[in-house]
Amino acid sequence: MGSEPRADDANRRRPSIAAVAAAAGVSPTTVSHALSGSRAVRAATRDRVIQAAAELGYTPNRLASGLRLQRTGVIGLASDRIATTAFAGRIVQGAQQAARERDVVVMVVDSEGDAELEARQLRSLVDHRVDGILLARMFHQRVSRPENLGDTPVVLVDAVPVDGWQAPSIAPDEPAIAMKGVEHLLAAGHRRIAFATTTDDTPASRGREAGFRAALTAAGVDASPAFIERGASDAIGGREAGRRLLERASAERPTAVFCFNDQMAMGVYQAAAALGLDVPRDCSVLGVDDLDIVAAALAPALTTIALPHRAMGRWGMNTLLDMIDGVDRGRRAVADVATPLFLRCELVERGSVAPPAR
Amino acid sequence: MGSEPRADDANRRRPSIAAVAAAAGVSPTTVSHALSGSRAVRAATRDRVIQAAAELGYTPNRLASGLRLQRTGVIGLASDRIATTAFAGRIVQGAQQAARERDVVVMVVDSEGDAELEARQLRSLVDHRVDGILLARMFHQRVSRPENLGDTPVVLVDAVPVDGWQAPSIAPDEPAIAMKGVEHLLAAGHRRIAFATTTDDTPASRGREAGFRAALTAAGVDASPAFIERGASDAIGGREAGRRLLERASAERPTAVFCFNDQMAMGVYQAAAALGLDVPRDCSVLGVDDLDIVAAALAPALTTIALPHRAMGRWGMNTLLDMIDGVDRGRRAVADVATPLFLRCELVERGSVAPPAR
Repeated sequence: MGSEPRADDANRRRPSIAAVAAAAGVSPTTVSHALSGSRAVRAATRDRVIQAAAELGYTPNRLASGLRLQRTGVIGLASDRIATTAFAGRIVQGAQQAARERDVVVMVVDSEGDAELEARQLRSLVDHRVDGILLARMFHQRVSRPENLGDTPVVLVDAVPVDGWQAPSIAPDEPAIAMKGVEHLLAAGHRRIAFATTTDDTPASRGREAGFRAALTAAGVDASPAFIERGASDAIGGREAGRRLLERASAERPTAVFCFNDQMAMGVYQAAAALGLDVPRDCSVLGVDDLDIVAAALAPALTTIALPHRAMGRWGMNTLLDMIDGVDRGRRAVADVATPLFLRCELVERGSVAPPAR
Repeated sequence: MGSEPRADDANRRRPSIAAVAAAAGVSPTTVSHALSGSRAVRAATRDRVIQAAAELGYTPNRLASGLRLQRTGVIGLASDRIATTAFAGRIVQGAQQAARERDVVVMVVDSEGDAELEARQLRSLVDHRVDGILLARMFHQRVSRPENLGDTPVVLVDAVPVDGWQAPSIAPDEPAIAMKGVEHLLAAGHRRIAFATTTDDTPASRGREAGFRAALTAAGVDASPAFIERGASDAIGGREAGRRLLERASAERPTAVFCFNDQMAMGVYQAAAALGLDVPRDCSVLGVDDLDIVAAALAPALTTIALPHRAMGRWGMNTLLDMIDGVDRGRRAVADVATPLFLRCELVERGSVAPPAR
């Protein structure tokens, strides 16, 4: 597995702010503002800069000040599902790369979704005087402030704070994911575009469905409810939703299926094969996640929208370390990151999208 | 994802030693000996007990003694590849479940395979006075004793100690994995059995190839070198190895392919489909891993040998906590686990194996 760059690759050549600016097509000042989450930078620009920084392994050099007395040099990363989600590790990886470049060690605790256990784990991290805590959710969630955190700085990753909790947070821009996917299919010439989505009611499913409809509406295409089919968010759910979409007579059949995730897309491939349909000749398929073990493994390889887990983990860690730095300097809040940052995602083009057959 | 039982299920009803004994078909005394790794228990029995204990969520109740002064109640789990292997989390999950039942918290560090970073992480764990360290490798490896551990107790998971290091360790019994797989195919009536394996030279690839040959030889079947094809240990490698095996004339073609892992098996499915062959009618396929996201997702679902990551994580944690308990009591070594414990694996029957066509 693992086509992701190794931590030591990133370390070998330390990229400059100018390199990030060049890659993102902006000025170094914009890079600096974008990485601190400034609202003065346009969202699309900011997201491009965050992803360019993650790809190049760029670290803002803000910790040269030597204000590191009183610190343990340890950051806690509390997650809910390392053990049971395949992409969970990418958040850990992004956070660890940033931590390493800024000379702190990450300790991970995993509650497997058990709130009582997480409370105990957070207490243990605070007792061990970690300098700060990254609170990560393995899919986009709304989170209330845990008790017992004391004044330990916290940043949320793949989650947004609710119930009046003010903490920096980052999550994928869910509507934008679906809009990008549908726009790619529209650009390839498709008009009969279906959505194979999950029955789970989450910020991701709601946001992506809204984006799906918005992109079609903007293009003047009817987002017929008949073209949305739901199932479990795995290959079996995708297979069933795909069968219901593809078993129709050819004039009624979608020519492209946008899928909630790569696993559902795998199921749509299977439904197509069972019906004697070829991907992408008879039906284009597009996923979300860019889960190596699925997207790169399918034949043809899957065109998909990459969820930016590594970039989110990296941003979260850098933001947390900046906060800690700010606390040392007597500043309490990081004002301009007090509202959630919703990150745009990149499309990874592989072999599953083609123009519709005549 | 995640058909694995949740931690809280295991907690609701605490199983007795009698329940484990009944499930494994042995006496409670044998359960006790098996879980402490005693060599007086037959390997097959011991492995059955370890897996039954993991399935039932059984915890040996050895920590009632109150010898817990001087402890921090924190165990470090140092791994090399949480971020980039899909099943890594199961070791963490097994270790965490055992830890939770014995009232300790686990902190995970992940070096992404970087030895220098791991040394720093281990130092940090020791500095934080963890009670012990589980050193986990995300595939079966040989490991020398890291420096800087001081007298912190260490147990190895999915790894065996080398260079004279004496530490309890557990890893899958690699030859037995392949023997079980091949015996299952022989029992279904196959004689032309191929092996699609990896080009990587590891304890897993060597052990499984030895087991593959041994099982065929024991059955009086020629383990022709022509029936072993190698590739990368992913779907693309499996697709290429599968194509080389299956494009032969039908009388020369294997009727069953045993695969190094589930991802390679996914590739063999793709090769079969591209050649117009049906799994399992024209070719049976058998994997290793039981990676949910692949094995359960394939159509037909994949029969595979489950790597016992959860059971290994659980055994490692219980053994480590027993060692710590022993140290408290003035005993230094856990003598009868000083040689590696190689765990047998279970076959998970799904839909990819059928008798050969006439």
